[in-house]
Amino acid sequence: VARAVRDLGSSRNGRAGDASRISDYTVRRLSVYCHLLEELESDRIDVVSSAKLAHLAGTNSAQVRKDLSYFGNFGKRGRGYAVSDLKRRIRSILGIDRLWRVVLVGAGNLGSALFSYKDFSHHGFQIVAILDNDPDKVGTRWEGIEISSVARCEEVLQNTPVDVAVVTTPASEAQAVVDRLVKAGIRGVLNFAPCKVEAKSGVHLRNVNITIELEGLSFALRAEEP
Amino acid sequence: VARAVRDLGSSRNGRAGDASRISDYTVRRLSVYCHLLEELESDRIDVVSSAKLAHLAGTNSAQVRKDLSYFGNFGKRGRGYAVSDLKRRIRSILGIDRLWRVVLVGAGNLGSALFSYKDFSHHGFQIVAILDNDPDKVGTRWEGIEISSVARCEEVLQNTPVDVAVVTTPASEAQAVVDRLVKAGIRGVLNFAPCKVEAKSGVHLRNVNITIELEGLSFALRAEEP
Repeated sequence: VARAVRDLGSSRNGRAGDASRISDYTVRRLSVYCHLLEELESDRIDVVSSAKLAHLAGTNSAQVRKDLSYFGNFGKRGRGYAVSDLKRRIRSILGIDRLWRVVLVGAGNLGSALFSYKDFSHHGFQIVAILDNDPDKVGTRWEGIEISSVARCEEVLQNTPVDVAVVTTPASEAQAVVDRLVKAGIRGVLNFAPCKVEAKSGVHLRNVNITIELEGLSFALRAEEP
Repeated sequence: VARAVRDLGSSRNGRAGDASRISDYTVRRLSVYCHLLEELESDRIDVVSSAKLAHLAGTNSAQVRKDLSYFGNFGKRGRGYAVSDLKRRIRSILGIDRLWRVVLVGAGNLGSALFSYKDFSHHGFQIVAILDNDPDKVGTRWEGIEISSVARCEEVLQNTPVDVAVVTTPASEAQAVVDRLVKAGIRGVLNFAPCKVEAKSGVHLRNVNITIELEGLSFALRAEEP
């Protein structure tokens, strides 16, 4: 598979021709490299060797070179990578150099915390619409964005085109909301509701459950209590 | 394994005798049941069948009964579970009915968002100390809690006993910070830094990477762009 993908690696825009052949692990490592390169850049470091980058990322330099090779030629043998250039190219590969329009579904505690999380916009995820079921919240605004009723979901998405939904509803509502959003044309979902949500193939869905991680941690700690 | 664990299920406090035998999947499902029971309770529903709970959780009733059987007897055959009682017992099993003292390491955007995330305290995770490296932040307060320098980590933890660290530092600093916290006696770590962090056995560490999930999502979406 690696070889087949490598042959596609030099397609325009530094993108692989068939992203589905790139493993999730590779994408995760690219994310890590990108974060480390941003930190090196802010430390005014211009060049980094694959060995140094690998060390920071907790992997080895062969892995770094292999991960990058899927997407074209980076750096020169023995000269290291130009930090800013490599960062820019990985941001482009990851698609975080462009704008993704986000609908936030669920204006509760977590929705509010994520709304104020500036790395969303740093990654090109811009919240342009907010949905909630609570009549006390509907009609109010967060930094100028009006909270609309979930019942008006389709209408809102027609007026405000959106690429991605960030779901922070209660567990019992998440699947129904996602079904509805997908029907309305959403292509990507980041689910923070404390349950596993599914979507038809072709829709990119990721489950991130902060409270489930918290509970897993407290379960492990509690089991050791005297 | 299931049978062996079941034999331990009726130990006091509804806790299994050996938590390491309980799979992470079981713990995750218990979390989901707990969230659903809280929602049923707030909808004033008193009794729920295993079939109904399973349907809401996206599993089957045999799985629900098996998951609960590890921890003792719940409900009566054919009568369903008492919602409030089952919720209370699962909260106890998960250890979210007691207080975990948390040090937040990294007072940046994500640290700030998580600090304002009320489900932390709802799950018994109370932030009692904050560490950061930024001289502009050290000495300032968030809701009365003074931000201390990471350099004073050991001293802070000696004065303010802490169970768990929530790490929201840059990727390049996360591992060093975790090593230091573990040396100072921390037993649990929830890492939000965009990198994989490791700790010696006996320390419970979970990696939750919001930005890596974001980047995975944008990579998948970008690969489909025309």
